[in-house]
Amino acid sequence: MSPESRLSWKDVRDQIHDAILSGRYGPGDRLPRDVDIADELNCARSTVQRAMQALSDSGIVERRRKGGTRVRPDPVTRATLDIPITRREVEQKGGRYGYQLIRRVEAVAPRGVLAACELTEPRTMLRVEALHLSDGRPYIFEDRWICLETVPEIGDVDLTGQNANEWLVQNKPYSRCDLRFYAVSADDSVADLLDAEPGAALFVIERTTWIDAAPITTVKAIATPGYQLLTRS
Amino acid sequence: MSPESRLSWKDVRDQIHDAILSGRYGPGDRLPRDVDIADELNCARSTVQRAMQALSDSGIVERRRKGGTRVRPDPVTRATLDIPITRREVEQKGGRYGYQLIRRVEAVAPRGVLAACELTEPRTMLRVEALHLSDGRPYIFEDRWICLETVPEIGDVDLTGQNANEWLVQNKPYSRCDLRFYAVSADDSVADLLDAEPGAALFVIERTTWIDAAPITTVKAIATPGYQLLTRS
Repeated sequence: MSPESRLSWKDVRDQIHDAILSGRYGPGDRLPRDVDIADELNCARSTVQRAMQALSDSGIVERRRKGGTRVRPDPVTRATLDIPITRREVEQKGGRYGYQLIRRVEAVAPRGVLAACELTEPRTMLRVEALHLSDGRPYIFEDRWICLETVPEIGDVDLTGQNANEWLVQNKPYSRCDLRFYAVSADDSVADLLDAEPGAALFVIERTTWIDAAPITTVKAIATPGYQLLTRS
Repeated sequence: MSPESRLSWKDVRDQIHDAILSGRYGPGDRLPRDVDIADELNCARSTVQRAMQALSDSGIVERRRKGGTRVRPDPVTRATLDIPITRREVEQKGGRYGYQLIRRVEAVAPRGVLAACELTEPRTMLRVEALHLSDGRPYIFEDRWICLETVPEIGDVDLTGQNANEWLVQNKPYSRCDLRFYAVSADDSVADLLDAEPGAALFVIERTTWIDAAPITTVKAIATPGYQLLTRS
């Protein structure tokens, strides 16, 4: 490593990316070895490694065990989604956040809920239905099931003032998360809650979290008509 | 750095994550300095740095300029989405891929298309409507606009056999991408193309790509009823 070296790993990442964008290296092509790139750019090999890691994380190149790198032959659009707690999302969009507990009940979990949690044995779970509001208008309706074996403390939490979304985030960090995105037609009860036309197309984010193998919660967040989830990369 | 050190950065990441999951460090809490963790775990400081980078990438901790780290006070659900080319997606789900060009026309871009591309001046673009099929049945309808100034070569490409999705991915790598996810009701023409009921709730992925400041394409991929986008982390 030369002491005059001034390239940051981001500079190196951009130079390699430019070589790919310009077509100098096409899909499937092998890139020079890290050590040769480091030589050519007069930077540390670890700088090239950091740059390649970033390009690999972005789905642009593939790293192989023996240190070889090639341009992904089968590119994917890779995007990082940050889904904040709903209160923050409303506030980030400039709205005033509100919350209403609609129903809290212990009930035998239906098959779909058990499957989402990767559970096979029937069991009683805590179902929490609640409405998130922006400027007093419905924003997201959440239909949540919480696993009482994993989160027995939830029994003592007052969910009329504090919502389950925030309580869980603050008190039950998860180690694994499944997300599903899809569209549903509003049935009469959801249409009524969200102030939408029956049959309106609604965007759904379904999220299930676990701590190790133990499911914490599964929730369908059903958004009001016109809702969009946006990500830039 | 001790020569007996055996912890990988993944081991270190998991140990720090476990300390957070167990509640030893709660939202907003400051973690020990990298050097102190390295001391305690008898590993290299660079190993701790790599572990912290991974926890930061996952949205679990926040790194500060002077090397301090704290548990994110305002946790987000961070997910990485890989959206493959549609052919690959169909094949990964076990289907036989098919493709039909529906219409190819040069036309003045409507305002929404210009806005998606961050363009202000009206212009003619290439509009390509096409259907992706799985086992002969409609899978995704794509309504695409391609910027002729950025991709003049597209004029010579036969899009009846090769689809624009794959041609662009192979020939026009992008440096920036916007993604939007939302739900729409099927209008009569989309319903007809996707073999769905008029008014059915359909999931849409809208994607716009640029190379530097020049827009390449913007596309609405409208999926058949029942489609789900899934990610695990």
